[in-house]
Amino acid sequence: MTPSNLRQALIPAGAEMIPNPRGTAPGFLLTRGGVEYYAMPGVPSEMKAMFQEHIAPRLRRRADVHAAVRHLRVFGYGESVVGEKLADLMARGANPDVGTQVEQSIIGVRVLARAASAEEADRLADAAADEVRRRLGQEHVFGRDGEQLEEAVARELERTGYTLAVAESCSGGALANRLTNVPGISRFFLEGVVAYSNRSKVERLGVPAGLIEQHGAVSAPVAEAMARGIRGTSGADLGVGVTGIAGPGGGSPAKPVGLVYVAVAGPAGVETRELRLTGQREDIKDRTAKNALHMVRLLLTGVKKP
Amino acid sequence: MTPSNLRQALIPAGAEMIPNPRGTAPGFLLTRGGVEYYAMPGVPSEMKAMFQEHIAPRLRRRADVHAAVRHLRVFGYGESVVGEKLADLMARGANPDVGTQVEQSIIGVRVLARAASAEEADRLADAAADEVRRRLGQEHVFGRDGEQLEEAVARELERTGYTLAVAESCSGGALANRLTNVPGISRFFLEGVVAYSNRSKVERLGVPAGLIEQHGAVSAPVAEAMARGIRGTSGADLGVGVTGIAGPGGGSPAKPVGLVYVAVAGPAGVETRELRLTGQREDIKDRTAKNALHMVRLLLTGVKKP
Repeated sequence: MTPSNLRQALIPAGAEMIPNPRGTAPGFLLTRGGVEYYAMPGVPSEMKAMFQEHIAPRLRRRADVHAAVRHLRVFGYGESVVGEKLADLMARGANPDVGTQVEQSIIGVRVLARAASAEEADRLADAAADEVRRRLGQEHVFGRDGEQLEEAVARELERTGYTLAVAESCSGGALANRLTNVPGISRFFLEGVVAYSNRSKVERLGVPAGLIEQHGAVSAPVAEAMARGIRGTSGADLGVGVTGIAGPGGGSPAKPVGLVYVAVAGPAGVETRELRLTGQREDIKDRTAKNALHMVRLLLTGVKKP
Repeated sequence: MTPSNLRQALIPAGAEMIPNPRGTAPGFLLTRGGVEYYAMPGVPSEMKAMFQEHIAPRLRRRADVHAAVRHLRVFGYGESVVGEKLADLMARGANPDVGTQVEQSIIGVRVLARAASAEEADRLADAAADEVRRRLGQEHVFGRDGEQLEEAVARELERTGYTLAVAESCSGGALANRLTNVPGISRFFLEGVVAYSNRSKVERLGVPAGLIEQHGAVSAPVAEAMARGIRGTSGADLGVGVTGIAGPGGGSPAKPVGLVYVAVAGPAGVETRELRLTGQREDIKDRTAKNALHMVRLLLTGVKKP
């Protein structure tokens, strides 16, 4: 223990310590002139745990209005399109109150209902969340409560028993990295190949060298060959192929930065999409990975339980 | 354009618009009672660009004290160890003022010098930054100004002309994903294999099946075989092999969650490290990738220019 840790044990005279379930940084409650002051540390994980486990329950016990919150997660629409579809629900002062927030191409829709009882608040929130789902469509609402696209994909892999392997060029591992964030995914995710060089595309995935020469590495036929190649060599039920231009260099008028092809190969054949993405290099990598996950999820939702 | 975009064109009467170089969200300056109020949008990229390009220069022109800031980035020490090594420099009220901030295993050291002239502030800041580098050692100070470990690795790859390929198990693509965040890395980074299944380790990388049976997939010999395997099959100068237990499941008393082996194979042989990492699944993946980058960087800094 270093002397700087000792300083973390100090709290102001008359304050009550708030337990920190995640670390050593201090938090405390001080009451002065009828006002309660809560001080929490700046490290987000420690602050959030402290708030959720000790401060929120304390505040909740004093409430005379009950609130119920539902969070839905939406992919494939821009925030302004979602805003138009939900405009009347999002009117200021409405109860439930509906708001949206965008973070890296994913729209979060928050439904907040207030009522005199917890049961009534729950009922109002559920009804509004159902209405939001109906308007945006099940294919765009992939989850709730901060859930990620890869978790929705993992749930569908679990349901169908399908296995998955991915071959990435421009996303550079972003897709495999997202998938492997899900605990237990090793039962369904067999492998990934980040085929950055053309040699890797040819030797690892069996993409014909002539196909790359004819169409260029960034093309629909190469994405399809990558998807079929990783599916065949890995033995997975589904293979994903991704190729594109993440930038900032490497673009041309015919094939600009942000041009991306995503292909998903399954038992019934291959589906390919051309994307025109915007943003910086890391944004394009991330949006490519999310679009690939979206396509896999849509394909899997159409698969009947084995 | 949706009606909600129109609302972004409104600013308060008497306010001066601040140009937004990155988007459509509004920002403005209002002066009341001799106080200047700057309002910026909440989207971080738009807010930061607005501040840096329009507000900061305006504030800087009025300054009568000049400041110079240096940011150093440190890997391989905990924050409290850095704090002890820099204790006297970090004393409250010192000029330059030295502070540290930790973010996902990387320690940022900030040196802030104040002086009557910009030149004097620069001189003070450079001297203090040099002293920090001397105390922490060049092997731990990998960069400056928000630079990432993968950028330091890319710089060394550029200097040496070496090429790189990576084979990942527990980091699941996090290492390839970081490397491919660097623009232009395709000249040096040939490919990655996310060998999640044992079959993938054997077939893609040539890891002997008997080695996995004898030592387990999470072991130093398997990490070494992965590093040698990806180096050989890709033709790269350096091959990295990573295997471990990212959790939350899969651990045992002998091989707990957070046990990770990283091997780097190069022309002179293989170096392997055993790591005991802490944190959630994503933290362990990220720390694994950073430790691998750190090892690659140390190896490359010892390579003479070709």
